[in-house]
Amino acid sequence: MALPRQSEDFPAWYQEVVKQADMAEPSLARGTMVIKPYGWAIWEVIQRAIDDRIKATGHQNYYFPMFIPAHLLEKEKEHVEGFAPEVAVVTHAGGEKLEEPLVVRPTSETIIWHTYAKWIQSYRDLPLLYNQWANIVRWELRPRLFLRTTEFLWQEGHTAHETAEEAIHEARKVLHEVYLDAVERVLAMPVRAGRKSPSERFAGAEETYTMEALMRDRKALQAGTSHYLGQNFAKAYGVKFLGRDGQEHFAYATSWGVSTRLIGGVIMTHGDDKGLRLPPALAPIQVVVVPIYRAEDEKALVLEAAAKIAAELTPLRVHVDDRAEFRPGYKFNEWELKGVPVRIELGPRDLDAGQVTLARRDVEGKQACPVPEVTARITALMDEVQDSLFRQAVEFRDAHTFRANDYGELAKLVDDPGGFVVGGWCGDAECEAKVKADTKATIRYLPLDPEPAEGDCLVCGRRATEEAAWAVAY
Amino acid sequence: MALPRQSEDFPAWYQEVVKQADMAEPSLARGTMVIKPYGWAIWEVIQRAIDDRIKATGHQNYYFPMFIPAHLLEKEKEHVEGFAPEVAVVTHAGGEKLEEPLVVRPTSETIIWHTYAKWIQSYRDLPLLYNQWANIVRWELRPRLFLRTTEFLWQEGHTAHETAEEAIHEARKVLHEVYLDAVERVLAMPVRAGRKSPSERFAGAEETYTMEALMRDRKALQAGTSHYLGQNFAKAYGVKFLGRDGQEHFAYATSWGVSTRLIGGVIMTHGDDKGLRLPPALAPIQVVVVPIYRAEDEKALVLEAAAKIAAELTPLRVHVDDRAEFRPGYKFNEWELKGVPVRIELGPRDLDAGQVTLARRDVEGKQACPVPEVTARITALMDEVQDSLFRQAVEFRDAHTFRANDYGELAKLVDDPGGFVVGGWCGDAECEAKVKADTKATIRYLPLDPEPAEGDCLVCGRRATEEAAWAVAY
Repeated sequence: MALPRQSEDFPAWYQEVVKQADMAEPSLARGTMVIKPYGWAIWEVIQRAIDDRIKATGHQNYYFPMFIPAHLLEKEKEHVEGFAPEVAVVTHAGGEKLEEPLVVRPTSETIIWHTYAKWIQSYRDLPLLYNQWANIVRWELRPRLFLRTTEFLWQEGHTAHETAEEAIHEARKVLHEVYLDAVERVLAMPVRAGRKSPSERFAGAEETYTMEALMRDRKALQAGTSHYLGQNFAKAYGVKFLGRDGQEHFAYATSWGVSTRLIGGVIMTHGDDKGLRLPPALAPIQVVVVPIYRAEDEKALVLEAAAKIAAELTPLRVHVDDRAEFRPGYKFNEWELKGVPVRIELGPRDLDAGQVTLARRDVEGKQACPVPEVTARITALMDEVQDSLFRQAVEFRDAHTFRANDYGELAKLVDDPGGFVVGGWCGDAECEAKVKADTKATIRYLPLDPEPAEGDCLVCGRRATEEAAWAVAY
Repeated sequence: MALPRQSEDFPAWYQEVVKQADMAEPSLARGTMVIKPYGWAIWEVIQRAIDDRIKATGHQNYYFPMFIPAHLLEKEKEHVEGFAPEVAVVTHAGGEKLEEPLVVRPTSETIIWHTYAKWIQSYRDLPLLYNQWANIVRWELRPRLFLRTTEFLWQEGHTAHETAEEAIHEARKVLHEVYLDAVERVLAMPVRAGRKSPSERFAGAEETYTMEALMRDRKALQAGTSHYLGQNFAKAYGVKFLGRDGQEHFAYATSWGVSTRLIGGVIMTHGDDKGLRLPPALAPIQVVVVPIYRAEDEKALVLEAAAKIAAELTPLRVHVDDRAEFRPGYKFNEWELKGVPVRIELGPRDLDAGQVTLARRDVEGKQACPVPEVTARITALMDEVQDSLFRQAVEFRDAHTFRANDYGELAKLVDDPGGFVVGGWCGDAECEAKVKADTKATIRYLPLDPEPAEGDCLVCGRRATEEAAWAVAY
């Protein structure tokens, strides 16, 4: 079935790409999804990219239980107010009513900081630099595959530090060296790093750092966040340590996460009217070989040549599509829909000419390539296509980043054409709320380091304290 | 704190090893555990070993939600009877009472086969060869870290096939090529492969294949199972396909899983009175280098030499323990407790003599090794220690596998010294139940292929239909 056009109905386009590219489908329990093998293979590459960087920056993995006794959630006031309305609760188990209900983790600060109270006694025990890969449940009223599901998968880092400075440095380091690096290099998704406004902070955080991407419908996507939690959780759970000064101190915390939502971000960053476009570093299948033949005597020859080329391309992730029941044109469409970065077409005429035909998913057109040069050319194309998709996304994002000179421009630009709209903000939550009420746009990011802004608040006209970037967001 | 001796109190020994080696600790919700970084690092190696083999045998990963609407569990009669008493139930979410309670998966056949009804239309859609890594909840009355926890982690394969023969072949192939191969080669844990008796089968299975290991307390551990499910789930969930014969057929199913329980198996297969002993292929730290120095001027020299040796041992997983606050003897004990396969000691006298001192965890004693030979020697030791631990475990298992000639011998041997006791069985569940009531021993495995047994049933004296291996088990 043909895809809806992005320009005509972006949400329908997204839904159909996810479905037709066999990435995920809704499941029975409200807002849950089955992540199908093709979607899962993408997630495995994302996991590897993030996990490698988490370890390279000195963190270790562990695993905490998903059940949190209800009373534990209630100890950090802002946190429980933020999450209580979204939790799923186990009230019965083993055939009996539980004495105390168990909350399915909506995030794990509570149970982890309860446990850190046992693990941390002295400054010698610090820092704790840990992470876990886990499933999370947050009851969503308007679920969308990958973007908002009641159960999703993520990693959550939870670190403990002696000083505020060290914790802040950690939160920012993860944002840059883990998240931004993986997302830009592997997912080829350009992001803006910044701070959240107080109203958009994680419940219980002193500062939330974010990376924000721009989707092809010119809406923003929060692609990952890293929080400086101050001493809030240490105080709520009694995590004190004997400091170098011989005094007791509460530990400083960070937490940070990215989730299966990134898959939705990849689809909406790179996809076009033909379907997915996957950057080679992320693609489960980097090269597809489509053998073309009519007569049976051609078949053996073509398949043999295809197998030989595929073998020479190892360790690239190559798939030879030798299905007999589909015609080449059908296969071309299917692999374009699935976003495979490079296609090799190989028929008797190609073989006679000692060449193959190459088609890139990131640009239109085909090119011939002599057989002896295929490996070198394809290897080079992996970088070229990766760079090209990143560059296209950067250009799109930059072409949809605007400066507004007054409130009217802000309100107009966030709606049409949409994108990031930058301008002065006085720091007042009321001005932020007014923009949201009038236009649905929210502050996506503030500068990483607060820097004095020139000019006035776009909303109220008072002196601006910093520059904000507004957008309508997922 | 000194460990209890295995021979005096094996359960206490196990509990203390898990605790002191920093592998896991109990968490708040009944029967749940925190898997700590050292335990998790072992699980990551197990996951990699299993996952590589799952993929090498043609399977792909996916992910199903953990919430299963309660009515879905009830469609396969034996299955619901087996699992209903163990499930945890979500009754409230998003601040409201749910219309239908959600069961937290105790295993995923129900939701997966419900979904396969949509995925399978024709024989062309078969086989489906899929697997997922997931957390599972089964309410345990007597939890023990790693061995029985209310939440545990596992992989569960779920395949669908055209014919019974193909499904049976799949179930047995996974048992051998995935599980047995990974467990014997990587975990160095010898196992017996066989069939379960009907009373020990998975709820809803036609045949359960198992691999059974013997722990150092001479109790058996079911280390992994692979089930042929016949058409039971296809019939319960309406999974029909149009066959090559133009007729509709129900699909044939398998499912198979191994879990974090394997970590407990490793501890109890190899551990000794000093703590863990990890096979090199599994060990998160394969080699620990302990620098020894007194004066400050020695320190720089020794640390430099240690760093150089560690660098040369790449890509082995090497850790240099340069903590200033602990003495070498303390470090030796700690790394022995944590089961690191090989220790390199390195002091000024060693350096003067152009050598290091090597200590293996699998055998007593130390040996000197000239510095230029360290890399070759350590590399060889990785295989030697791996083989040695496997051989020790095989010898122990074989020394505790007995043949019983009558019921008295069976009852005596399963109790003292304990181990696998083999003898004739008539196939009657009543005889099996009598043994369990009298001795706590159960049938751990029957021959993979039923083969005519000689002699009589050890229990009732009637003609034996096959030979069974009994043991007291975890």
